[in-house]
Amino acid sequence: MAILIERAEYVVRDAERIERDADVLIEGERIAQVGRVARENKSAWTVIDGRGRAVIPGFVNAHAHLYQSFLKGLRDDVPFVEWNDATLFPMARAIHQEYRAEGNDAGGYHWGILSALEMIRGGVTCAVDMNMNMDSVMRAWRDVGMRGVSALAVVDRWIPKVLLRDLETTKTETLRLIRSWHNVHSRITVVIAPSTPFLCSRELLEWSRDTAAEWGIGLQIHLSESRYEVDLIRKETGFTPIAYAHNLRLLNSKTTAVHCVHVTHADIDILAETKTTVVHCPKSNLKLANGFAPIPKMLARGVPVALATDGAASNDSLDMLEETRLAALLHKGVAEDATAMTARHAFRMATENGARALGIDAGTLEPGKLADLAIINLERPHLMPAHDILNTLVYCAKSSDVETTIIGGEIVMRDGVIQNVDERAAMRDAARYGVHLFERGKDLWRDER
Amino acid sequence: MAILIERAEYVVRDAERIERDADVLIEGERIAQVGRVARENKSAWTVIDGRGRAVIPGFVNAHAHLYQSFLKGLRDDVPFVEWNDATLFPMARAIHQEYRAEGNDAGGYHWGILSALEMIRGGVTCAVDMNMNMDSVMRAWRDVGMRGVSALAVVDRWIPKVLLRDLETTKTETLRLIRSWHNVHSRITVVIAPSTPFLCSRELLEWSRDTAAEWGIGLQIHLSESRYEVDLIRKETGFTPIAYAHNLRLLNSKTTAVHCVHVTHADIDILAETKTTVVHCPKSNLKLANGFAPIPKMLARGVPVALATDGAASNDSLDMLEETRLAALLHKGVAEDATAMTARHAFRMATENGARALGIDAGTLEPGKLADLAIINLERPHLMPAHDILNTLVYCAKSSDVETTIIGGEIVMRDGVIQNVDERAAMRDAARYGVHLFERGKDLWRDER
Repeated sequence: MAILIERAEYVVRDAERIERDADVLIEGERIAQVGRVARENKSAWTVIDGRGRAVIPGFVNAHAHLYQSFLKGLRDDVPFVEWNDATLFPMARAIHQEYRAEGNDAGGYHWGILSALEMIRGGVTCAVDMNMNMDSVMRAWRDVGMRGVSALAVVDRWIPKVLLRDLETTKTETLRLIRSWHNVHSRITVVIAPSTPFLCSRELLEWSRDTAAEWGIGLQIHLSESRYEVDLIRKETGFTPIAYAHNLRLLNSKTTAVHCVHVTHADIDILAETKTTVVHCPKSNLKLANGFAPIPKMLARGVPVALATDGAASNDSLDMLEETRLAALLHKGVAEDATAMTARHAFRMATENGARALGIDAGTLEPGKLADLAIINLERPHLMPAHDILNTLVYCAKSSDVETTIIGGEIVMRDGVIQNVDERAAMRDAARYGVHLFERGKDLWRDER
Repeated sequence: MAILIERAEYVVRDAERIERDADVLIEGERIAQVGRVARENKSAWTVIDGRGRAVIPGFVNAHAHLYQSFLKGLRDDVPFVEWNDATLFPMARAIHQEYRAEGNDAGGYHWGILSALEMIRGGVTCAVDMNMNMDSVMRAWRDVGMRGVSALAVVDRWIPKVLLRDLETTKTETLRLIRSWHNVHSRITVVIAPSTPFLCSRELLEWSRDTAAEWGIGLQIHLSESRYEVDLIRKETGFTPIAYAHNLRLLNSKTTAVHCVHVTHADIDILAETKTTVVHCPKSNLKLANGFAPIPKMLARGVPVALATDGAASNDSLDMLEETRLAALLHKGVAEDATAMTARHAFRMATENGARALGIDAGTLEPGKLADLAIINLERPHLMPAHDILNTLVYCAKSSDVETTIIGGEIVMRDGVIQNVDERAAMRDAARYGVHLFERGKDLWRDER
């Protein structure tokens, strides 16, 4: 069935090309027309009134850890390494116990739903979840209508032994998840995620690379997030994390390298030459006191940059509009140069750059592209007057201004109402489950250390 | 009439003292009880269901220029000095023409309403407007129910002559506004605002100081915002802007010094010793590429710090929740120390510190305090689960989660509905007027330069 968004005040095809008083026609899962749509067949269409509204490409949250939606708002006063111990490890311990020992994967379903609800409300139409992924997370995406990229995390060192699987199980399970989910459901794809060099042996990094090549899928890896990591990898290998990953031939145009905060000029050259997309997570870098990624330098050198929230434990939300705004603002202050990063740069990072890096045929509003988009109500005191709609969106709009979200041609939220699940029941159940799981994890963690 | 907020999930008295499952009773303009309220007289009260909600002190936006709500989203690619020329001066020119030459003060009413609507929606219960203030702005506050501090801007140099009044008119008009408005309406007070040393002669700074002392009111002044300013004042006077202001005896516990980005250790000592409150505007400092105020150093030295959005041309909103979050995050990143600034520090800056500096008897929820508060709906996917409500509020909550806002015991927004004006008509009229005014200003400015 076709959907017509009629007479939108603005249709933002991308950061540069913006039409006024235009229609968007969606047929099946793709955009059929943008501009003036003939209305002969209108009676058979779902029609959405676009007046006073802006239609924009949906945001692509290029890196998150969705289980951390159970951990939002926990701790704001501990450095990076202790933060793992205070928040992530207890939760990981509980998940490990429930899922691996007891075969219960309800947690994944709950955090999958809870995080997808938050993102759909904020116009995020595609998200990457790097985690010990479970089928239940992907079932949650399917049920709520989210487009997801499951980044199948593999690790085999540094983290406490009780949280590790043996290497053969890790490999077997990763291959099973690729077979079960990659492009099987139309909105779910898979990448392999060797978490970061200090959590992965050289063997596991090479296995990840070869498996990704064999299946034709991407890699996602954390690189140069903290000084701690850079020092550790330099000591172990003699190289920066980025140079080390490059030496192992992990970096190419299908690889997304998350953070890249503490990088050298040579690192930036490597990223540019290999066409690796950097996934910038400015809020997480602030929260964990890791500092500022030199994004303007990367852009000047031609490195592709996407944007992401990271997990909700270090953000503490999955709000891509606010992340886009922060990216646009932060680098002006760091460089003491108001031209260092513009709203247009940041918007592109939050939409098309993420889509391109992840091989998702969306990120701009063009005929033929997947219909992943958000409709923003502009009739709000904080959005009026709108002198320059792209600036208004990046600097003034809020997630709560998203009224309708469409993913793959399906309306998943309309006029603020989530369509596919009972939102109130789902989020209450999820929150209750999250508290239970974290309490259980804290107990286990306390007893075992 | 009394208002009872019944069985709130959380009552945040201040950043440290939080009660669960508590009531708040408001009688007249003040808070009568917090905790368990006897319900004998309940039938005569307005009762608000607090279940699933947090009651918090309203935010105090300690520095803004409300006319800039007409300029939101304009320009993100010009340095500080050019930005004045591209946005502020054309608008100032149009206002000057309309108000001073033609006696039309409708603009002030429109931006007063538009900005107050945005702030009430975001739980801001008191705001400072530094501007060439007009009676019409204060009439707008009165009509919508906002608590406002009118910071009567006086300037006599640097800015283009066509925007300047003669000095005697400035003084006469300032005295008239003090007499007409200071404590005349119960929610409106006045401070004098010699804008910044580079816009004010020594004579005008001294006149401001003496007039403030005579009336027992405060001063608000921009100090050390940009390197440009610091260099200029050093060259002219041999002192930093803060030392210069101190030499002129402008700094004391009733003075609010806005920005204080480029400060020396000696400047911080002066601020601490004079008990001057610094008004931190982190987002504006980023947008205008001025850098980072060393707030953690100021806190360590005992300088009182309040928080503000600054004008919407450099923010581009009046969203104190997002500003609080940014303050809590930014300084962690700058210091590469996750303990450099906590959610509790930032929340205090956004509430009680601003109220104290401005002499407003609010900022915490205590019996006897003015009933200036916001009620936040916690049943949202981005707020659940809430492990630590203060962290949840600062790191996860959004302005749009504010459901009800009470100012001076009056419900000015209830369940998302603005009570005292027709919001839709008011914001449309205001936005239209803003565009008209800016277009007119651009024409005048182009012709006259």
